[in-house]
Amino acid sequence: MGRRERNRELTRARLLAAALDLMGTKGPDGTGIAEITEQADVGFGTFYSYFESKDAILAAALEDVAEQLAATISSATSSIEDPAAAVAALARHLVTWAGENPSSGRFLVEVGLARDAVRRHLGVLLARQCDRGVQSGRFDARSADTAKSVVGGAVRATIAAWLDGHLHADPGPALAAQILLSLGLPSEEAWQLAEAPLPPLTTPSTSQRTTP
Amino acid sequence: MGRRERNRELTRARLLAAALDLMGTKGPDGTGIAEITEQADVGFGTFYSYFESKDAILAAALEDVAEQLAATISSATSSIEDPAAAVAALARHLVTWAGENPSSGRFLVEVGLARDAVRRHLGVLLARQCDRGVQSGRFDARSADTAKSVVGGAVRATIAAWLDGHLHADPGPALAAQILLSLGLPSEEAWQLAEAPLPPLTTPSTSQRTTP
Repeated sequence: MGRRERNRELTRARLLAAALDLMGTKGPDGTGIAEITEQADVGFGTFYSYFESKDAILAAALEDVAEQLAATISSATSSIEDPAAAVAALARHLVTWAGENPSSGRFLVEVGLARDAVRRHLGVLLARQCDRGVQSGRFDARSADTAKSVVGGAVRATIAAWLDGHLHADPGPALAAQILLSLGLPSEEAWQLAEAPLPPLTTPSTSQRTTP
Repeated sequence: MGRRERNRELTRARLLAAALDLMGTKGPDGTGIAEITEQADVGFGTFYSYFESKDAILAAALEDVAEQLAATISSATSSIEDPAAAVAALARHLVTWAGENPSSGRFLVEVGLARDAVRRHLGVLLARQCDRGVQSGRFDARSADTAKSVVGGAVRATIAAWLDGHLHADPGPALAAQILLSLGLPSEEAWQLAEAPLPPLTTPSTSQRTTP
């Protein structure tokens, strides 16, 4: 990548980071393009050589956040054989990430809801483990059809409540336990899995960045 | 109420119904004031003698839908003594209502999410039964703090999936069962309560309307 391309990438990333931060705090409707360019420290007109509209940068920012988060969490959970342990780890990692990245978290759960990018990247991770659990008999098959919406909805709403200060402590373990219970696991096992040490996130591969 | 007031009420109701229908279908961003007045069959300028802005009619429509729905469902479930049976009935009535009123349902779950009116009217109904269940020992107290977000999020996401055609049949009973399981009820009892005949909605009292 030449210097010109590197600079373009950098400016684009600065615009995306600014959009995400502002929209996560004030919502897309409350955020103007001028604020985004100001926070990114680029000229107002520059915006339009990267994005067609506010909607376009919103979509690109969602795609970025959802894709990166899914890649990170997926690499930490895809090798877990037990779908129950995998669902618990996914839910807890999502909560932890949102707590550590509140403006991105708010952006995902409030703006990203029902957006295609979030479904494709994050919804799919949860859905895959739910399907595995039902197919293997680990989860109650009577709930197979609604299981995915219940799990996804519970995660989203709990992150929103956590970021809004409605919960007293890290809700990750209790959320994971309730999800496993809802999927038919016995109480003792559900709580044991939900409160087990969380497998750490590995730093995602940086090979793409270092490729010349 | 004189004729003049009755006419004003009627026009306001027509504007609200049109806003709700259009915003439920195309979202608030995709709906213009001119479309609302056209569908309500009133002049464009008339809008502003009822509402200050699109945001104002959006807030009023949400308040109306959430309040009426909460009153109807509350009257059918508030006399149920067992909080588990009450939570199951609430969840199933919300799903049934959304299936029968898809544009209002979509409006509530997509636009109304995290809005104060929806929390105050509908969130409170679910939260109250969750609190009762935890206090009486009917629900698992370890989950008390996250229980409300899990239940609310599960209902919302399941209604959204149902309206989007992602579920094959009425998800009400399976949703109710998963909610009860997540709150710690044993499987057999959760499914029994979730699949029991649903107490019918009583028509809400019309005494307010007939008062002269």
